Amino acid sequence: MPGLAARLRAIVGDDGVIDHPDTLAVYECDGYTLERAVPEVVVLPRTPAEVPPVLRVLWDAGVAFVPRGAGTGLSGGTLPVAAPVMVCTSRLNRIEHVDLPNRRVVAQAGVVNQWISNAVRAAGLFYAPDPSSQPACTIGGNVAENSGGPHTLKYGVTTNHVLGVELVLPDGEVVQLGGPVEERPGLDLVGLVVGCEGTFGVVTRATLRLVRAPEGYRTLLAVFESVAAASEAVSGIIASGILPAALEMMDSLILGAVEAAYRIGLPTDAGAVLLVELDGQAAGLDPQMAEVEAVCRRHGVRELRLARDEAERAALWKGRKRAFGAVGRLAPNYCTQDGVVPRTKVPDILRVIAAAAERHRLRIGNVFHAGDGNIHPIILYDERDPDQVERVLAAGREILEACVALGGSVTGEHGIGVEKIRELGLLFGPDDLRAMMRLRAAFDPEQRANPHKVFPDARVCVETRAPRRQAPM
Amino acid sequence: MPGLAARLRAIVGDDGVIDHPDTLAVYECDGYTLERAVPEVVVLPRTPAEVPPVLRVLWDAGVAFVPRGAGTGLSGGTLPVAAPVMVCTSRLNRIEHVDLPNRRVVAQAGVVNQWISNAVRAAGLFYAPDPSSQPACTIGGNVAENSGGPHTLKYGVTTNHVLGVELVLPDGEVVQLGGPVEERPGLDLVGLVVGCEGTFGVVTRATLRLVRAPEGYRTLLAVFESVAAASEAVSGIIASGILPAALEMMDSLILGAVEAAYRIGLPTDAGAVLLVELDGQAAGLDPQMAEVEAVCRRHGVRELRLARDEAERAALWKGRKRAFGAVGRLAPNYCTQDGVVPRTKVPDILRVIAAAAERHRLRIGNVFHAGDGNIHPIILYDERDPDQVERVLAAGREILEACVALGGSVTGEHGIGVEKIRELGLLFGPDDLRAMMRLRAAFDPEQRANPHKVFPDARVCVETRAPRRQAPM
Repeated sequence: MPGLAARLRAIVGDDGVIDHPDTLAVYECDGYTLERAVPEVVVLPRTPAEVPPVLRVLWDAGVAFVPRGAGTGLSGGTLPVAAPVMVCTSRLNRIEHVDLPNRRVVAQAGVVNQWISNAVRAAGLFYAPDPSSQPACTIGGNVAENSGGPHTLKYGVTTNHVLGVELVLPDGEVVQLGGPVEERPGLDLVGLVVGCEGTFGVVTRATLRLVRAPEGYRTLLAVFESVAAASEAVSGIIASGILPAALEMMDSLILGAVEAAYRIGLPTDAGAVLLVELDGQAAGLDPQMAEVEAVCRRHGVRELRLARDEAERAALWKGRKRAFGAVGRLAPNYCTQDGVVPRTKVPDILRVIAAAAERHRLRIGNVFHAGDGNIHPIILYDERDPDQVERVLAAGREILEACVALGGSVTGEHGIGVEKIRELGLLFGPDDLRAMMRLRAAFDPEQRANPHKVFPDARVCVETRAPRRQAPM
Repeated sequence: MPGLAARLRAIVGDDGVIDHPDTLAVYECDGYTLERAVPEVVVLPRTPAEVPPVLRVLWDAGVAFVPRGAGTGLSGGTLPVAAPVMVCTSRLNRIEHVDLPNRRVVAQAGVVNQWISNAVRAAGLFYAPDPSSQPACTIGGNVAENSGGPHTLKYGVTTNHVLGVELVLPDGEVVQLGGPVEERPGLDLVGLVVGCEGTFGVVTRATLRLVRAPEGYRTLLAVFESVAAASEAVSGIIASGILPAALEMMDSLILGAVEAAYRIGLPTDAGAVLLVELDGQAAGLDPQMAEVEAVCRRHGVRELRLARDEAERAALWKGRKRAFGAVGRLAPNYCTQDGVVPRTKVPDILRVIAAAAERHRLRIGNVFHAGDGNIHPIILYDERDPDQVERVLAAGREILEACVALGGSVTGEHGIGVEKIRELGLLFGPDDLRAMMRLRAAFDPEQRANPHKVFPDARVCVETRAPRRQAPM
């Protein structure tokens, strides 16, 4: 596409267009590595103002595109399927406005999630959604995926923290959605765009809500002999009326991997650990933590380790947040599944996962947001063995079917992307899906923005699952 | 429309169709009384299953309809404008399913908001959104208007508490949106339908999230000499890091009205009072309230009255929640405006309101969610005087224009309805509004569901403001 690349270079500069095969290989997948596809052209606008002309060039050329942030998504949302051009927002990296008294910031799409909290920490504020990829993932990607994180139990997911967005539609039209205050009058298009996985166009800016940093934290590691006992403690803590800021579980496979990688002193012989964090006004923290500990004891906890200072707290969180990376040492590849069940069904879904691992001869670790019922089985495999890949896909599908059967959903926080197009149909009937597709068509009747994602009309994708493929034209 | 009424009676029974003029007059307005219009037929389905055939009859007859719950809305959302038939959900009044361990209920659209909390109180749970009309308003109306209430400061508005809805589209198709868990995979149609003001069809059921009732409350009445001092105390409380469950302000006009009506001992000579409620774990409440009181003292509070028991707390809330009713004693009519500004701009908007009252020779009281920046000027008038009506409209418009100029929005929680169609254009440009209208058209291209509401294409409405009118055919 030499003509197209030249027109794009005229807008974004020579270094803003990548079309050399060696460099393009970097963009062949995101955090979902079971499928890959290389784009023909990657374009990196330098400012939000460059995005509308870029999209107009693509529109006029009749070319579809896929938006991409940092590429840390876990469901293949940025895989270039039937979209030869990738529009990458990573150079839109300015925090444009910080309004401390009203607790909000305006950030360009390529601003890294962690930078927001860094920028307002001195004022005692933070940006609450904290996916594990927080040091790398960008606000634009968070908006596209409606990202969660360990602290969603108390603070909610991205959609609860986005007040407004600037969206460039596929034809280059710019719309301002939502606004500077909490209320979203008229139709809630912000809520629709948050989580649309790039199917409505490119988000270039977002107005984000800041939250006051709590006075203090208490962070507890509770060690259990079994996943079942830990699960029951989770139910007990929630039933006690305490709302932890985070309530995470790691099983023995994960503990072993994290400990091998970081040596933070985790008990590798335990069945499971809970990481329980309370935050809030200093006065209430100790009595609440005493109650959490009492609940854990009632459920046969083996050991309770309260972080004594910020360093110990940071070490525990480092173990949790880098668990995915640590697992990389155990096998050539891994696939992080993502589902959710009603909180009371966590023990049931964990049994399903164990059974799926045995039946498909796979190793599966569990590290997840237990308080939300949001599971993350990590399935280890070797992509060089096609039979293993098939077994990973089969096990994943069984687990998600069980999530739905237990009253849950096929994705907790990772999105549909290419990974779960088929599974979306487990949850919604044809009429429900048609309603979603009508909405998508209202903005993008020709499916120019991230085609063949999310919706089950994406036959190209569903029927050609393969470990590696080219973007079809 | 005798033929139509007969077909509707065949579905919903003889007592489910109202077409006698005397009875129809009951439906000529909702809580927004500045404009009125009488429907030709009101139809009241007995079950959710009767709604699709009712809508199909209307669809086949080419007749537009307006959905209505309890009629407590404050922006004329249920005014039958260009919609001769009203579909009233008040007989869909069953709570169908209560799932205490997973904290959710499935309620039909006509269930009264308060009934949900009543049904789960014994289990220590409640349904958080609590508009002042809570004892009368219904879940379907709350969903349509994305209703707020005094406790939204801590708990959020309706959209934060709706997990799923059953929606009947104008052609009678039934779609299930969202689901039983927090995550909404695919496009967030629940978020779009919540707050759509009935423009997508009729919601027949909703799955609602329950919240654990706090261990305790502390409720404080803080009496100030001036609205300005009270406003500064509000900023001080928020800045202290305490998140009250509610933080309400009432000015002297409102205090006088409430006291005259209910005699609960409010200081009628004060400039303003704050009603501050803390809730949560019992241990933290007293230290937090001590800090709230200290902030109030720093801002010159005249008197602090802490409710000593549940009876005193209930009396304070009764005064606040029935303030609107009490104002009814002061003038033949009143219009409750609704806008929102960034919290730091509350003193500015209060000055604007005072100036508008003086310029237009109107009495305006203020009772509002100060913690959210969500203002509710109550404008007193006499609808028999057309000049006064014009002045009310002019003052309202000036106040809303000022909200936007101060970085806020034209509606805090009451919606657009017929009242604010013109004002929506203050907030959104033509492209932004077109994006909303595209979405609406995706579901209802012929505008059969609540036509001429929300969007500024509703010329019929905008150009014929009059105190009383017939629904045009």
